[in-house]
Amino acid sequence: MPRNHQILLRSRPAGMPSLENFEMIERPVPEAKEEEVLTRTLFLSLDPYMRGRMSDAKSYATPVALGNVMEGQTIGQVVTSRHSGFAAGDLVLGQGNWQEYASIPGKTLRKLDPALTPGATALGVLGMPGLTAYVGLLDIGQPRPGETVVVSAASGAVGSTVGQIAKIKGCRVVGIAGGSAKCRYIVDELGFEAAIDHRSPEFGESLTRACPDGVDIYFENVGGDVQRAVWPLLNNFARVPICGLIAPYNETGPTPGPGLRSVLSKRLTVRGFIVLDHEERSAEFARDVGGWVREGRVKYREDIVEGLENAPEAFLGLLQGRNFGKLIVRVASA
Amino acid sequence: MPRNHQILLRSRPAGMPSLENFEMIERPVPEAKEEEVLTRTLFLSLDPYMRGRMSDAKSYATPVALGNVMEGQTIGQVVTSRHSGFAAGDLVLGQGNWQEYASIPGKTLRKLDPALTPGATALGVLGMPGLTAYVGLLDIGQPRPGETVVVSAASGAVGSTVGQIAKIKGCRVVGIAGGSAKCRYIVDELGFEAAIDHRSPEFGESLTRACPDGVDIYFENVGGDVQRAVWPLLNNFARVPICGLIAPYNETGPTPGPGLRSVLSKRLTVRGFIVLDHEERSAEFARDVGGWVREGRVKYREDIVEGLENAPEAFLGLLQGRNFGKLIVRVASA
Repeated sequence: MPRNHQILLRSRPAGMPSLENFEMIERPVPEAKEEEVLTRTLFLSLDPYMRGRMSDAKSYATPVALGNVMEGQTIGQVVTSRHSGFAAGDLVLGQGNWQEYASIPGKTLRKLDPALTPGATALGVLGMPGLTAYVGLLDIGQPRPGETVVVSAASGAVGSTVGQIAKIKGCRVVGIAGGSAKCRYIVDELGFEAAIDHRSPEFGESLTRACPDGVDIYFENVGGDVQRAVWPLLNNFARVPICGLIAPYNETGPTPGPGLRSVLSKRLTVRGFIVLDHEERSAEFARDVGGWVREGRVKYREDIVEGLENAPEAFLGLLQGRNFGKLIVRVASA
Repeated sequence: MPRNHQILLRSRPAGMPSLENFEMIERPVPEAKEEEVLTRTLFLSLDPYMRGRMSDAKSYATPVALGNVMEGQTIGQVVTSRHSGFAAGDLVLGQGNWQEYASIPGKTLRKLDPALTPGATALGVLGMPGLTAYVGLLDIGQPRPGETVVVSAASGAVGSTVGQIAKIKGCRVVGIAGGSAKCRYIVDELGFEAAIDHRSPEFGESLTRACPDGVDIYFENVGGDVQRAVWPLLNNFARVPICGLIAPYNETGPTPGPGLRSVLSKRLTVRGFIVLDHEERSAEFARDVGGWVREGRVKYREDIVEGLENAPEAFLGLLQGRNFGKLIVRVASA
């Protein structure tokens, strides 16, 4: 009789989370209720936004309650279905959370076609991170050919897609990443014009040199020191889509932002967005980015960690930039 | 033989300007060169942006050079014209600056029809401040009926127009102003739903009480403490057009802005704008706001100071909110 391993939120972190904030337990496998689908988790996505769910600070989403299973998007295989839209064996995308089995309302699931979204891509370049990049760059950033785009966390799931779409749109792309391997990757593999290592002591000067014409779009993924370094380089009428702020997620004090005077005098547009508000763009996204992936014009890299028990440590690594590519936990094999 | 009194920028202020930063001198009346028009200044507009021109900090416009005439928009009467578009006696809007006579390239002048822009309205509600309000509220703020609009400096040339246009668009308008006379005016005369005195010790609580449904548009005219009080009240998807920041104009230290985390979690749009970039909206503006003024749906108030020699003191008062309505200097009578 299989058991259901789950990872719970045991305590709320102050600042950077630690392994003690999580607890792994074993429970019986649930039964599917009416209109539900019992799924066996194959892949669990780990994403920076989960840091927000661990806190009870006011945010756009309800925090995970203490003692509850950590939330997360999963690709699962249907074990039993009590919803007419799904049958045993189907691959589904849904909110399966940090656990081996989940019984999920069928209406919240999406059936996956492995020809269109192979492997774990529905959690990465062809999923929420890819849509985040697509909406943030195109709808909010509104890139024009010849403009300079700076993207932070540039080797990550969102950042790498932002940069490659910006290239397709004719922009000059400067990526910011941590460490020489990631920097080489975004230039050599992804074709960005330049990569700047934010851990380098010459970070600020290197960034300035890499942007001789200033910065027209800063795709903000991280905040903190990187944001402070990019800000003075922004051109008049620059756009700053803010999709994440991984740096201040773990700061406990107040984190004032850039002075509004720069926003006025440079006529900046600074706009926060959350991908869940933009699902109406899913069809165009799937068509465009799906096509670019198939044509090899958008590449992606996955960092796959084996076993649910390793999810907490992998997540802590994500917050410190230790992953290289979209971080995915392989919970089971199909 | 008439002489030309001029007010020069004598020194750059650190923090709040003082009378010592200005100097009044007398020079011969200039002669119009080819394609120029010699104008006698009737009205000089005093506006907060002029504080920026007094500094040599990087901004969107070149500062006034030390020893040069202070810049400003004027309504003048043509004395002699060497441009085919203008004749003696015409009323013209242009960059006449802080002086009694100016010879101005004809191509930069606009002929005024006193039936359409009576008195000094071409410097106020039907001029740059009005267009600022129109573009900032409608194009950047994008008001929807039922939304709550908060406008700072609400009895001023820009703020009073913002609030009245917002009312026309079906919004609930809360104005922030300094002192009970201005607060009474914006409620009793302009019809705003509420007025909050930013000098009151209960400012923050009063503002919160006046916005039971939060704030959907914050039209930012002042920055500083008012901005800090409004920020926590912003709703998800709120828009913040930034048209001026009179408070930090006179702060000398760094003035950090609101944390980007709020911009992200509430999906705010924070956008600076400068009216000079939006002159393509002039025709719609003149049609709409001109019509509303004629219908009595948009009211305006002018604060007219007599005599060029009083411009510096009036300008210092403007920076401290001592004016009540659009501040205009009557330099001469037609």
